[in-house]
Amino acid sequence: MRRSRDVSELVAGARGGDPRAVARLITLVENGDDLVPQIAAALAPHTGNAQVIGLTGSPGVGKSTTTTELVRVLRGQGHRVGVLAVDPSSPFTGGAILGDRVRMQQHATDTGVYIRSMSSRGHLGGLAAATPQAVRVLEGAGCDVVLVETVGVGQAEVEVASLADTTVVLLAPGMGDAIQAVKAGILEIADVFVVNKADRDGVDATYHDIQGMIGLGERGPGEWRPQVVRAIASRGEGIDEVVAAIDKHRGWLVERGELRRRREARAAAEIEAIALGRLRERIGSLRAGTALPKLAAEVAAGTSDPFTAADTLLRDMG
Amino acid sequence: MRRSRDVSELVAGARGGDPRAVARLITLVENGDDLVPQIAAALAPHTGNAQVIGLTGSPGVGKSTTTTELVRVLRGQGHRVGVLAVDPSSPFTGGAILGDRVRMQQHATDTGVYIRSMSSRGHLGGLAAATPQAVRVLEGAGCDVVLVETVGVGQAEVEVASLADTTVVLLAPGMGDAIQAVKAGILEIADVFVVNKADRDGVDATYHDIQGMIGLGERGPGEWRPQVVRAIASRGEGIDEVVAAIDKHRGWLVERGELRRRREARAAAEIEAIALGRLRERIGSLRAGTALPKLAAEVAAGTSDPFTAADTLLRDMG
Repeated sequence: MRRSRDVSELVAGARGGDPRAVARLITLVENGDDLVPQIAAALAPHTGNAQVIGLTGSPGVGKSTTTTELVRVLRGQGHRVGVLAVDPSSPFTGGAILGDRVRMQQHATDTGVYIRSMSSRGHLGGLAAATPQAVRVLEGAGCDVVLVETVGVGQAEVEVASLADTTVVLLAPGMGDAIQAVKAGILEIADVFVVNKADRDGVDATYHDIQGMIGLGERGPGEWRPQVVRAIASRGEGIDEVVAAIDKHRGWLVERGELRRRREARAAAEIEAIALGRLRERIGSLRAGTALPKLAAEVAAGTSDPFTAADTLLRDMG
Repeated sequence: MRRSRDVSELVAGARGGDPRAVARLITLVENGDDLVPQIAAALAPHTGNAQVIGLTGSPGVGKSTTTTELVRVLRGQGHRVGVLAVDPSSPFTGGAILGDRVRMQQHATDTGVYIRSMSSRGHLGGLAAATPQAVRVLEGAGCDVVLVETVGVGQAEVEVASLADTTVVLLAPGMGDAIQAVKAGILEIADVFVVNKADRDGVDATYHDIQGMIGLGERGPGEWRPQVVRAIASRGEGIDEVVAAIDKHRGWLVERGELRRRREARAAAEIEAIALGRLRERIGSLRAGTALPKLAAEVAAGTSDPFTAADTLLRDMG
């Protein structure tokens, strides 16, 4: 009872722009607290409209600098911006590069920006489950753009892509990233490529490599062709162009009905994951009961088989 | 109907010692065929007594040679022996070392031995699910000892340990295996260690390393202390001692009631996994229906939240 009232108060606080309420809600979400369903229910009426931008790339490619610069441009356009850093190498999550952290601190005094790092806190699949809820918290708190930054290795990009309306992949010259991107399946998920550190040697090669690879992809008429933008995030150069490319992609999403389709597919995946988690819990709770040990003893003795036993177990679950 | 009769015929054939019937049943099991529940039900009355021995170790440590020699000794004791090689580097599964393959072929003409390689055939968790069923097929075919050979890297050992009554871990001198074993958590799952290639330099160091590590483990009175045996499998030396250590462990399992406990725990895990798989299928089948898209649209629009939607989905599943 007490805690239920807390949720109403916290959501009201977050809606009113209290950063402590936002922080508390994200912590609850991150920890997979029992209150998460209530939080989600309380936030639902205030969600469904924020633009979610995923930003990914290998360590060292300039993700946090680019994020900082994107926040600057988006703020200049009058947006309220939320940042979720689910990147363990991000300066926002602890592995700090001082220069970036200082620069980001500009925004720390700006009440139109909410910056938050996320960690999995050890529970399996936790981050994948918590991130969409955290996006809802930020949207409930009035952010109309949410940037989700993840490190670009393996599964993480795919999860960003499934969460974001638009996925931005950062590359840097001379890191073999164009080739690596193809190997890692990044080509399929990127809506916008940013070739960062465009003052470095090899930028033209990287730019043309990635353009070449995009050219090889088959796409029907009206399908989105990933944009490639050059930037020097550390000097703020090219960031307006990145934002323009993101906006262009959003325009395409809306025009094609793809935004709605993506968001519904995302919601469906989320509902399924929660339902599956609930079913797992039910099975787990059966361990404590008497049904499973009895069935297991029958199977071990050869008087039943595991498939018949599983059917019995499921029937008894009701 | 036709296929149901096939199962009865195949199980009868396997019971009668027809190697083609055994092969066909294992293939069905390996492919996760729809007939697997029927096969398991038909085999159940003939299962629950075979001794299951897991054999694991890094590539190059002499697993297949040791398996071959164990088969020889066990045959000499009058056992009917089944071998499941779930090791992709095993000569029985294709990555052949000619010498071993030739030696194993001795047993190929021995009707008291059934040797079979297993592969996952690409379906997720397939091997872990199929192996206990394949053990049942071999037991149904009259094998009173089943050896399950897996390559000792990562998750595989744990799966062997959860399947086997007794888990044998092979080491070789000079491979840093003793240290690696600890790192990989092998110390916890091994009931018997075999230091193979005991004619090589460094055998004493490996033997004492592993004994030292076993000594560090805490165990209560009456708990099993892993045995360490030296062997030169390529010359058949030490294999009688390996079998003796396995028998000693089996004696301990029986005496302590641990054999029954382990088998029931194994059956419980298997039942749970099958039940969970069934629930996943049910969720999957909902994708084809109309409930999930409608719920997803509500969540995307902010008129519902994913937790409420998941509850609705589960309720409608009945």
